[in-house]
Amino acid sequence: MTKYMLGIDIGTTNTKAALYSYSGEEIMVALTTYDLHTNETGAATQNPDEITAAVYDVMMEITDKCAEENINISFISFSSVMHSLLAVDEEGAPLTPVITWGDRRSEPYVKNLENEKGSSIYHRTGTPIHPMSPLVKLLWLQHEQPEITKQADRFIGIKSYVLHQLFGEYYTDYSVANATGLFNMHTLKWDEEALNIAGITEEKLAKPLPTTQILPPLKPEVVEELGLQLETQLVIGASDGCLSNLGVNAIKTDTVALSVGTSGAIRTVTNQPQTDKNERTFCYALTEDHWVIGGPVNNGGVILDWALEQYGTVDHKTLMEEIKTAKPGADGLFFHPYLVGERAPIWRADVKGSFYGLSIHHQHAHMLRAILEGINFNLYAVYHAISEVIGDGAEEILATGGFTKSPVWVQMLADIFGIEIAITNVTENGCFGAALLGLLATGEIDDFSDIGKMFKIKRQYTPNQETHVFYQEHFEKYQKITQHLLKLEDDL
Amino acid sequence: MTKYMLGIDIGTTNTKAALYSYSGEEIMVALTTYDLHTNETGAATQNPDEITAAVYDVMMEITDKCAEENINISFISFSSVMHSLLAVDEEGAPLTPVITWGDRRSEPYVKNLENEKGSSIYHRTGTPIHPMSPLVKLLWLQHEQPEITKQADRFIGIKSYVLHQLFGEYYTDYSVANATGLFNMHTLKWDEEALNIAGITEEKLAKPLPTTQILPPLKPEVVEELGLQLETQLVIGASDGCLSNLGVNAIKTDTVALSVGTSGAIRTVTNQPQTDKNERTFCYALTEDHWVIGGPVNNGGVILDWALEQYGTVDHKTLMEEIKTAKPGADGLFFHPYLVGERAPIWRADVKGSFYGLSIHHQHAHMLRAILEGINFNLYAVYHAISEVIGDGAEEILATGGFTKSPVWVQMLADIFGIEIAITNVTENGCFGAALLGLLATGEIDDFSDIGKMFKIKRQYTPNQETHVFYQEHFEKYQKITQHLLKLEDDL
Repeated sequence: MTKYMLGIDIGTTNTKAALYSYSGEEIMVALTTYDLHTNETGAATQNPDEITAAVYDVMMEITDKCAEENINISFISFSSVMHSLLAVDEEGAPLTPVITWGDRRSEPYVKNLENEKGSSIYHRTGTPIHPMSPLVKLLWLQHEQPEITKQADRFIGIKSYVLHQLFGEYYTDYSVANATGLFNMHTLKWDEEALNIAGITEEKLAKPLPTTQILPPLKPEVVEELGLQLETQLVIGASDGCLSNLGVNAIKTDTVALSVGTSGAIRTVTNQPQTDKNERTFCYALTEDHWVIGGPVNNGGVILDWALEQYGTVDHKTLMEEIKTAKPGADGLFFHPYLVGERAPIWRADVKGSFYGLSIHHQHAHMLRAILEGINFNLYAVYHAISEVIGDGAEEILATGGFTKSPVWVQMLADIFGIEIAITNVTENGCFGAALLGLLATGEIDDFSDIGKMFKIKRQYTPNQETHVFYQEHFEKYQKITQHLLKLEDDL
Repeated sequence: MTKYMLGIDIGTTNTKAALYSYSGEEIMVALTTYDLHTNETGAATQNPDEITAAVYDVMMEITDKCAEENINISFISFSSVMHSLLAVDEEGAPLTPVITWGDRRSEPYVKNLENEKGSSIYHRTGTPIHPMSPLVKLLWLQHEQPEITKQADRFIGIKSYVLHQLFGEYYTDYSVANATGLFNMHTLKWDEEALNIAGITEEKLAKPLPTTQILPPLKPEVVEELGLQLETQLVIGASDGCLSNLGVNAIKTDTVALSVGTSGAIRTVTNQPQTDKNERTFCYALTEDHWVIGGPVNNGGVILDWALEQYGTVDHKTLMEEIKTAKPGADGLFFHPYLVGERAPIWRADVKGSFYGLSIHHQHAHMLRAILEGINFNLYAVYHAISEVIGDGAEEILATGGFTKSPVWVQMLADIFGIEIAITNVTENGCFGAALLGLLATGEIDDFSDIGKMFKIKRQYTPNQETHVFYQEHFEKYQKITQHLLKLEDDL
C-alpha cells in the first residue's frame, strides 16, 4: 500500500500543505493566505490566531480530500518561518502580534550589540546581529514596551504558538531556535550570555527539540477535529530556510540552493556549524549533522516589480525582452539594488540603492539591464561570502522561486556565477523538505543519500564562458562601488 | 534719423544676425544653421567654410531687408564661440576642420598639464586646463597629426577664419584669445610659456586686438557684395560668453547671468582678472575693464531631454507637471547629472552620472524631480565657486536660454539659489551684447552705466524661503556625494 506524508510550511504570506507519496510524488497542495501589517514605523506584524487558523485550514482541506480518496497520512512534518517573535501571557494569549523577520523597529538596538560581545554571540548562535533577530527584538521590546515584557510568560515564535494550540506545550526545534540569536549551536541549548543580554531566562522560551523529534500523540478530540488518524505521527520539523535546501536536494557543499522570490537567499549545507569571520553568513541547523550556511537578501523580485512600475514597462516578459537588447554590463552602468536596505552580504538596514556610471548614451534598456544585473551581483556577492566560509565553490546551483519562470534571469545568473543552474520539478520546496525530514524522523530512511531519485531536472542553464569572464571583471567594480556606497552612507 | 546696429553671433549650431535701433529695439533677426560632426572618438568638428557662408548668409539676409526698408546699418559687431581651433596653410586654406569646444579627443593630454606649470598657465590665461582649451588641442594635434602641424601656417579660431575671408588678415580679439589658454590676461599678449608648451610661436597665431577695435574698412567690392554702405563700421567684438553677459545687463558683481540651453553657464563681471585657487572658474575679457568670471556646465537641457526620452514622458510640459508632484528633495533621492562628463565646477571629463539614495518608495516622479534638482545643484555649485572668487554673492540673477520657458524649472532655481531671478525681453543676448559693445567701440556711449534702460523685465521669480532653507541642507549632501563620486571614479 502506498504511504503518504504531509509537509506543512508556515510562511510569511501564506501557509501551505502538500501531500506526497513516500516516493516523492506530489499528490495535492492546499494554501491559505493571511495579512502582513506594515506601516511607516517599520512595523511588520501578523495576527498569530489568523496564522493558526490557516494551519488548521490547510490541514483540514487536505484531510477532507484524503478522506474522499481513502488516503491515510502516515506523518505530518512542519516547516515554518524564522525570526518571528511574540509575547504570550500565562494563559498562552498573545500580548503582542507576531513581530516578523521583516519588522525593522528594533534597528536602533543593533548598535548595542555591534561589539565584541555581539560578535561572539554571532559566532555561537549563527544568527547575524540584525533587526530580524529575536534577540535584538527582545532588546527593543524591553525598552519600548516594558509593561508587556513584564507581563509576558513566554517569548516564542509562530511555530511554537501553533504547536501550543495543538499540544498545550511550548516546543520549538533546533532549526527555528537557531535563528533567534539566543541558541548556542555548539551546546544545542539556549545561550546563557545571549539570554542575559536579552534580560530573560530559558523558562521564558520554548523548549528546543531536535528537528527529527516525533511529538507526543495529539488528544483524540484534536485528531478527530483535524480529520487525522490516531496513528498519524507529528514531526516537529525545521525552519523554512533549512527545509528548502533539503527540498531541492542541496544538502552538500558542492551544491548551492538559490531561491529568489520577492526577496532571495543562497544556502549550502555542511556537516558542522560554521560562521564567517566577517559575519556575512548565517548558520542554522537542519539536523545535528546538517548545518545550513547562507545569506538572505532583501532585494530580489521586489526590485524588479519596482522597476516594472517606475520604468513604465508593460509586464515581466516585455521587461526581459528589453533587457536582452542591452549588452552584458549595460555599457558601464551599475545598479546597486539596496532599495529595502540589505541583509547579506553587507547587513546594513540603512544602505540605499544607486545607479552609477550614467552616460548620455544609456537608454531605458540599459537601466533595466543594470537593475537585473545589480540584483544578481548582490546574490553573487553572498555566494562569494559562503564560498569563503566553506572554503570551496559549488559545482551546481539548484534554483527555486518565482524567478525560475524567467529564462533571461536564470541565464544571466548562470553567466555571472559561471556555474550550471538546474531547476527541478519540485515546486513546494519547504513542504517537500519537511516531508523528507519526516522520512528520516520516522525511520523510513537512515540518511538523505538516496533522496536524489525523487527529483527530476526540468531545465538546465549552462553559463556562457565569455560572458562569465566579462562579468568577473565587472563584478570587481560592482564590489568596489558597494564599498564606496557604504562609506558614503556613513558620511551623510 | 534713427540709427541701427547689427550684432552677429557665430555659434556652435548656427549663426545669427540681429538688427537693433540704437535704443535697443530689436528690428529683425536672421539665422542660418550648420552641422556639427560628432563620432564615437569624441570628435566634434565643423566645416569652416560652411560657417563662413552662414555668416555671409545672415548678413545678406539682413542687408537685403534693410535695403527694402531704406535702413542704413551704422556698425556691425561680432560675437563668436570660444575655444575653436583649426590649422590653415599659407594660402589660408583649412588643413583641419574646426575643432570645436566640445571635441574631447585631446583629453589624454590634459594630464600633461595637471601640474604646477598647468596651474600657473591657468592663473595667467584664465582658461581651465581641459580638452576644450586650444592649448590642450594643440598638444593633441602635435602628437596625433604631426604632418599637419608641420604644414600649418597658422592655428586660429573660427572668428579669425571668418574675418580672414573679409579682411585678408588674421585678427582675433582679447576675449576669444583669452579663451585659448595661450593668452596672458595681465600683459594682454600671447603667453610665452604657454606658447612654448604648445610648441609654437606667436607668428603662428592671429593678432589679438581689443574687443572695441574698429577694423580697417572693407574693400568696396566686399561692401557691395554684402549690401553694406561704405561708412558701415566693423567692430571686432568679443566671445559669445562674455557678450551674453553684456546682452543681459549682468556686468557687475552683484548680478549673475545664468544661461541654460543644452548646456549652461553662470557668469558675473569684475573690473580686473580674477582666478580661483581651486581652478574651478574661468576668467575672460569682455573689455580691458570688464572681466567675466564664470563656469560652463555640460549638463543642462541635454539631461532633461535624455530623461524625457528614457523615462517615457510625453513632453516637457508633462515632465514639469509630474516633477511638481514630488516634494523638494525628492524624498532623499539625489541625482548627479554628469552624463556628458562635466566642466565647472569639477572639470572632470571622465566623471559619470548617478542616482543615490534610492528606496522602494521612490517613484517615477521622484526620479524626474531628482534629475532636475541635480542639474540645478550642479549650477548652484558653480555659483558657489564664483562667489568665493568674487568674495561676495549676487543680489539678482538674470536668466537666459531655453529653460526660461519653464516656470517650474526657474522657480526651482530661485528656491535653490535663494536669489530673485529675472527674465528680460532680450532673446538674442549674444547679438545684443555685440551691438552694445559696438556702441562703446564707436564712441556712441562712454561706458555701460546707462544701458539698463534698454532692458525690460518680462518675468520675475522670488525664492520660497522655507524651500531655500531646506535646499541649503540638501545641497550640503549633494556636495558630499559629488566628492565620493570623484573618488569612486578614480578608484575604478
